[in-house]
Amino acid sequence: MIDHRRLRVALLGAGSVGSQVANLLLTQASELSERAGADLELAGIAVRDVDAARDVDLPRELLTTDAESLIVGADIVIELMGGIEPARTHILAALNSGADVVTGNKALLATHGAEIFDAADQLGASVSYEAAVAGAIPIIRPLKDSLAGDRIQRIFGIVNGSTNFILDKMDREGLSAEEAQRIATDLGYLEADPTLDLEGYDAAQKAAILASLAFHTHVSLDDVHREGIENITADMIDGARRAGFTIKLLAVCERLEGEDGESISVRVYPALISREHPLASVHGGNNAVFVEAAAAGDLMFYGAGAGGIQTASAIMGDVVSAARRHIAGGVGVGESPRQSLPTAPIGRIMTRYQVTLEVADEPGVLAQISGIVSEAGVSVATVEQTPSSDAEGRAHIVIGTHRAREQALSDTVARLAESDVVERVVSVLRVEGE
Amino acid sequence: MIDHRRLRVALLGAGSVGSQVANLLLTQASELSERAGADLELAGIAVRDVDAARDVDLPRELLTTDAESLIVGADIVIELMGGIEPARTHILAALNSGADVVTGNKALLATHGAEIFDAADQLGASVSYEAAVAGAIPIIRPLKDSLAGDRIQRIFGIVNGSTNFILDKMDREGLSAEEAQRIATDLGYLEADPTLDLEGYDAAQKAAILASLAFHTHVSLDDVHREGIENITADMIDGARRAGFTIKLLAVCERLEGEDGESISVRVYPALISREHPLASVHGGNNAVFVEAAAAGDLMFYGAGAGGIQTASAIMGDVVSAARRHIAGGVGVGESPRQSLPTAPIGRIMTRYQVTLEVADEPGVLAQISGIVSEAGVSVATVEQTPSSDAEGRAHIVIGTHRAREQALSDTVARLAESDVVERVVSVLRVEGE
Repeated sequence: MIDHRRLRVALLGAGSVGSQVANLLLTQASELSERAGADLELAGIAVRDVDAARDVDLPRELLTTDAESLIVGADIVIELMGGIEPARTHILAALNSGADVVTGNKALLATHGAEIFDAADQLGASVSYEAAVAGAIPIIRPLKDSLAGDRIQRIFGIVNGSTNFILDKMDREGLSAEEAQRIATDLGYLEADPTLDLEGYDAAQKAAILASLAFHTHVSLDDVHREGIENITADMIDGARRAGFTIKLLAVCERLEGEDGESISVRVYPALISREHPLASVHGGNNAVFVEAAAAGDLMFYGAGAGGIQTASAIMGDVVSAARRHIAGGVGVGESPRQSLPTAPIGRIMTRYQVTLEVADEPGVLAQISGIVSEAGVSVATVEQTPSSDAEGRAHIVIGTHRAREQALSDTVARLAESDVVERVVSVLRVEGE
Repeated sequence: MIDHRRLRVALLGAGSVGSQVANLLLTQASELSERAGADLELAGIAVRDVDAARDVDLPRELLTTDAESLIVGADIVIELMGGIEPARTHILAALNSGADVVTGNKALLATHGAEIFDAADQLGASVSYEAAVAGAIPIIRPLKDSLAGDRIQRIFGIVNGSTNFILDKMDREGLSAEEAQRIATDLGYLEADPTLDLEGYDAAQKAAILASLAFHTHVSLDDVHREGIENITADMIDGARRAGFTIKLLAVCERLEGEDGESISVRVYPALISREHPLASVHGGNNAVFVEAAAAGDLMFYGAGAGGIQTASAIMGDVVSAARRHIAGGVGVGESPRQSLPTAPIGRIMTRYQVTLEVADEPGVLAQISGIVSEAGVSVATVEQTPSSDAEGRAHIVIGTHRAREQALSDTVARLAESDVVERVVSVLRVEGE
């Protein structure tokens, strides 16, 4: 090794990912520096509480509560504090002082991404965030670089490991939602406040980041249509299984071409997916992302969606790349300029639906319901009627539609709900991946 | 768009991939230049015969037979001629003249990679080759950058679409090898000379490239243990199915730790893989690559392994990235320095095996055979004996072993072949992905 440059690395945060990153920087130093073409010196680790318990023992002398001073003079700043502030201020300070930034902060990027990327562009620095989406799976770099010469039409996938763990437990072991959630909490898949995961906020943040990158536009968390898995019951999963489906919480980002030009739809919801589809075999806390590109066709990326050491791999890839960039000279290679594509309302999307109704078990009901649906211009693909197991004199009707516009479908469901023969709309689920 | 720089792009070769690349450069110019931050001007296309028929109509005035002149003054040279010469000379000339190079030439990189990467490093230029392995699937960049901070233990996958198409046809439609090959040829999956695909040369070239990158070492085609699918029969596929397996041509790159230090094994062979394994569902001409990394865990990359337009996507991603690099300034970010890890002989690898023997259908044969196997130190996991369908008085014995060293296994097979009770060793197949 000849005349290596030394790069000072500042680490902000020593939680489950941060402590693993620190450990890799300390224990794999010689391999990493060889690959980076520079010695990566861990200058310090900013934490809230120097005495807090950590996943990995870290040298006491590296810990500090003074993030501001640590950032000054750093060549690479790794932000793993999470949350909006003070992470945002620290990242902007790091860019201003000439450092490249590596972050896994999806909440920040999904809300203040434009501000941060603009600052990086103006300052000639780089912001890397492979760890922000789908943990260890390389998806950001493939979208940003490998597919930079292609036109991405659609991305859909499982990007939240906790909810996938829960749905998978319910599907494979017949557990109730409560039981599955309890196990997920015990195993550390769910936070003390599980709202971010269960209500789809975490997946929506990731969808905003993926859509922004894939469509070269600005998508913020507010642009994402979001439904969580709070209302998914064991019965719904059971019904899905009988129809050849499983239920997955999906993030879907797609381009829509309309008379009024191009728009995009970015949404997160639990959807039916055929048991034959590769996403149906994504078990436990794993993630998988499908990308449909005009030239490349269908691509899939699969791996661990979370976990301290797994996510640390993505952070370290970004750190080594940032170090190589520093050594090579030149300014940071920014992202593509971003347009501002309008976000279509959820009513604009087209997909297939499966509507389950509880009805009076009387002759003529099926005909009446089919009439309401077809009057609304929604084309019925399958109808199945079974006696209700829990209510005497009632039946369940499951209507599978052909591809329909969401607006027409929700109008139809509203009319069904008002109809005399329908006791209750049990569930409305979209079918994806077809 | 303010004050765009213009970059001259020279294209060498206008075959199935090259003509699609030219078409994308011509028809998507404004989108591409926006993403690249520079106008990408297709300066010319070097071909052997200006009048040859092409997949895509290309402007006559761009075609030239004078590659040397075209290269002079180009900022980015895309080499899609294939083969060793004159591709090698042209690439070195391009690097010498200060251009960045994008190539899909696996044969060249698997034999002269070290020379080309060294030249690029010394000249501060970049050589990108996403298209050289697994067509449209982003795998090179994830290995080079995203996993640069991790330690890759093992890569295995399906990297040749033609042979996967043939094996898949045999498996799913019960065709003979000849029938499946005929269809593959008719559909353009196989070249007029199918040797490169059928005998595993193409997969071995890709394995050499993947192993070099993943293990930061120099692996040349000669270091790759190579077996093709020439001897795979419908009977073998049928037997595999009955045992819960399918047969896939796999490229396997792995680190081996031994008493004498670290070595690597790089090999291509048809292997049994459980029907439950995700690789078993890779159908037709698709490719999929599994990566096992110390921190990231298991990752999978899946997509189209070949095809002109699909592979053009990978080329264009490299072109846009090279253009951004040009605009950002600085030297090309090279690859990690490479060690020279020794390649272990095939006898050193450990895996499970399935050995099929034709034996005399007599009492005591099974015991005798089990004796020979266990004497050799290979541990038997399963034994199954079935009467032979095509030879009177004979039986087939299928022995599934526990993990064993290849050397011990081949010694055992040699002893079995010599034994009086064994008429014929029908097949010896390795089991991968467990």
